[in-house]
Amino acid sequence: MDNVQGLKPFFEPASIAIIGLSRKTGPGTYNALENLISYGYAGLIYPINPNASEIAGIKAYPSIKDVPGPVELAVISTPRERVPQHVRDCAASGVRCVSILTQGFNDAGDEEGNRLLADIKQTAAATGCRVLGPNSFGSASYFHNFCSAFARVSMQPSPVGLVSQTGGIFDGVSEFRFVGKGIDVGNICNVDFADCLDYYERDPQVRVIALHIEGMPNPRHFIDSARRVSRSKPIVALKTGRSRQAMKAALSHTGSLAGSNEIWEAAFKQAGIVSVYSMEEMMDVTRALYMLPPLTNPNICVATFSGGTAIMALDAMQGTDLTTGEPSPASREQVARHAPPWLGVGNPVDYWPMVMGSESVPQAIDRIMGILLSDRVFGGWMFIQIVPDLRRGGHTRDILKGIVARHPDRPLVCVLTGPHGSEIIRELQSDGILAFPTPERASRALARLYRYHLWRSSL
Amino acid sequence: MDNVQGLKPFFEPASIAIIGLSRKTGPGTYNALENLISYGYAGLIYPINPNASEIAGIKAYPSIKDVPGPVELAVISTPRERVPQHVRDCAASGVRCVSILTQGFNDAGDEEGNRLLADIKQTAAATGCRVLGPNSFGSASYFHNFCSAFARVSMQPSPVGLVSQTGGIFDGVSEFRFVGKGIDVGNICNVDFADCLDYYERDPQVRVIALHIEGMPNPRHFIDSARRVSRSKPIVALKTGRSRQAMKAALSHTGSLAGSNEIWEAAFKQAGIVSVYSMEEMMDVTRALYMLPPLTNPNICVATFSGGTAIMALDAMQGTDLTTGEPSPASREQVARHAPPWLGVGNPVDYWPMVMGSESVPQAIDRIMGILLSDRVFGGWMFIQIVPDLRRGGHTRDILKGIVARHPDRPLVCVLTGPHGSEIIRELQSDGILAFPTPERASRALARLYRYHLWRSSL
Repeated sequence: MDNVQGLKPFFEPASIAIIGLSRKTGPGTYNALENLISYGYAGLIYPINPNASEIAGIKAYPSIKDVPGPVELAVISTPRERVPQHVRDCAASGVRCVSILTQGFNDAGDEEGNRLLADIKQTAAATGCRVLGPNSFGSASYFHNFCSAFARVSMQPSPVGLVSQTGGIFDGVSEFRFVGKGIDVGNICNVDFADCLDYYERDPQVRVIALHIEGMPNPRHFIDSARRVSRSKPIVALKTGRSRQAMKAALSHTGSLAGSNEIWEAAFKQAGIVSVYSMEEMMDVTRALYMLPPLTNPNICVATFSGGTAIMALDAMQGTDLTTGEPSPASREQVARHAPPWLGVGNPVDYWPMVMGSESVPQAIDRIMGILLSDRVFGGWMFIQIVPDLRRGGHTRDILKGIVARHPDRPLVCVLTGPHGSEIIRELQSDGILAFPTPERASRALARLYRYHLWRSSL
Repeated sequence: MDNVQGLKPFFEPASIAIIGLSRKTGPGTYNALENLISYGYAGLIYPINPNASEIAGIKAYPSIKDVPGPVELAVISTPRERVPQHVRDCAASGVRCVSILTQGFNDAGDEEGNRLLADIKQTAAATGCRVLGPNSFGSASYFHNFCSAFARVSMQPSPVGLVSQTGGIFDGVSEFRFVGKGIDVGNICNVDFADCLDYYERDPQVRVIALHIEGMPNPRHFIDSARRVSRSKPIVALKTGRSRQAMKAALSHTGSLAGSNEIWEAAFKQAGIVSVYSMEEMMDVTRALYMLPPLTNPNICVATFSGGTAIMALDAMQGTDLTTGEPSPASREQVARHAPPWLGVGNPVDYWPMVMGSESVPQAIDRIMGILLSDRVFGGWMFIQIVPDLRRGGHTRDILKGIVARHPDRPLVCVLTGPHGSEIIRELQSDGILAFPTPERASRALARLYRYHLWRSSL
């Protein structure tokens, strides 16, 4: 497919030219070249600056036309009025992929901005050159030690491919990095959401696709692609510009007509796209989709050290497809052996009365979770614990690692509240264990995971 | 008032007896005495255990009746069948406050549990002894180095008084501790939500009250108290047990009849209680209420390093009272001097095009925020920045400290995305600066802050 080879240089260019690079380097200069070097990028780099012979120790060239070797990707961040000529020069020099980071085209809302963009589009159409942006944050791949942005991003080796219209999401949020590969289509010249879906569909390093959408010129084409791609790889989408004020802002951010929420919702549903409504939810659901096995049975067992927190989890399941039915008679009976006689064993399963009398709390947790995780009445499991300090957090981490190692095929989410939850959650993330700081976020992620299963099984 | 003196020993007892204390100490034993010592509690402690002469180095007594001095608070965590006699012994020995941590009363749902609770209630009524719980996590005050719970909690010197029906919320969540004083009313014998409101109302260390409610026997009395107290101190409430499954779980957690959501919502509104719907929102709104000055004008200025993230903030304001109108002509003109000519200065204010050409990014941020914070068209301000690494985060922290120091009377919330946002947000918290990891959470907190202002000004 054309997009598979066509977009490859945006993620793993063998050589890159950086046009409009400042000579200033060091903290606070947002120098894209320094940034790129810091990732350990192994390809060839050609800084372009007519007033410098070298930048950050690398030989510079006055123009793209002066570069001696082939250039797979050119990144442009000059003032807007010079961008069209640079694009022409790139195309003429055989560069097949161009990223435009410069702002001030259809996002500016003036006539000049529109005229300049039309000029760039004409070059792209005439030469077949793939133009990302303008007003793009660039593109990045953790696996290729590559990022074309002027600002540092912090990614991770996750099987998540992001397509966005902002750089603000590449880094993840709070305790979570989530992006393995990312591309910001910006104001969309001729690299669109659909093109990126095609690329990620065939990319063996990508298993889940995350989208941040403000708007796009050809939504029908996008929905057609998404309907095909989401059969093999889940797609999570955050559609922004939903309010009137935000629509106006989207127009001056990426020049997007944000469009009616109802139409987008219906289209997402039809295409099997998992819709999310905040940055946090986007991270949470994306992580659930790549870290957990499929959730094929909506009955969730909630095992908890805090009865009150479990009730919050149940509240958050209201209005979703999830249920919290009783354990099977066999496992109720097994669990009851560890419980005081007055404790009715149901769902949520309350840990405290059971572990309080036990010789070893970790062993008691292990034993009871073992019983519950073997009960096929349930399709998913939630484990809730409070982490008041890092020492206890470390114990919890060890216990959970053991449990997950013994039950790798079970969709288990952990909830770790307490102010040190974040640290332990981050560590669990690197252990491949899905954890959240609140019960509501865990419930929501499971609910979306099950929604994706429902859609897949309806095909 | 009776409750002011009556409940004081739950938060700052001069002396405490711990009944039902295990002789086992060390990690994993959940020994309440060891816990208490670890906080640095300075009062007198009397361990009660008929089989030990000392526990954790402190002289133990066989019974409360053998304790030589006066006891202000007794904490009971024996098996349930022995609790009524201990309560009788406490009352007979002149103990005026008793916390019952033991579970298995009306939460167990068996006849015996109800009978035992009736027995305790009778003693409480006959003697005037204040009985917290049963099934309470206990009570705690950061300011008194005091916590009666068997599990460690991690609090902070914040002016937040919590009344809950779970221990799961004392610790805060994610990057946030939020509780300065906390009390878990559990299954509610004769220390009720209304009593605790009376106490916090007169407590000079408490400025905001946070409630976690599953249910209570006398909601009308509670609402009457709340209506009075919320005039002087904001009350935030998370009502749980909202779904059918959760109501059932609440019945076996604290023996609460959760009641109709609609009735609770209407009552909260009438009493000026700020309603929240998740643990995260509870932290966020509580923090906003004690950290920010009142938000008396709903027009919010959004200044951002990420256009896409600002749009998410605007989306989250949809359906709230907040607006995002244009800056005044004077400040538009001043900001425009720092902007490229094509950039329309509106709201959100997009930082990138302005700082990219500046000599010093921190100075540019300072200057522009200074203009915006002086524009009285706005009542609140949101500053959005991405934190890709801790070094940049440190810079952001310094910049924000300077800005807030120069404008202490402005309600300013910060949004710091990126995986290291959490660390910086935690540090900002200790600097007294309110920050969130996502734009949606910041918008939601501001909206609730304004709601409280609306209610107060309607009186």
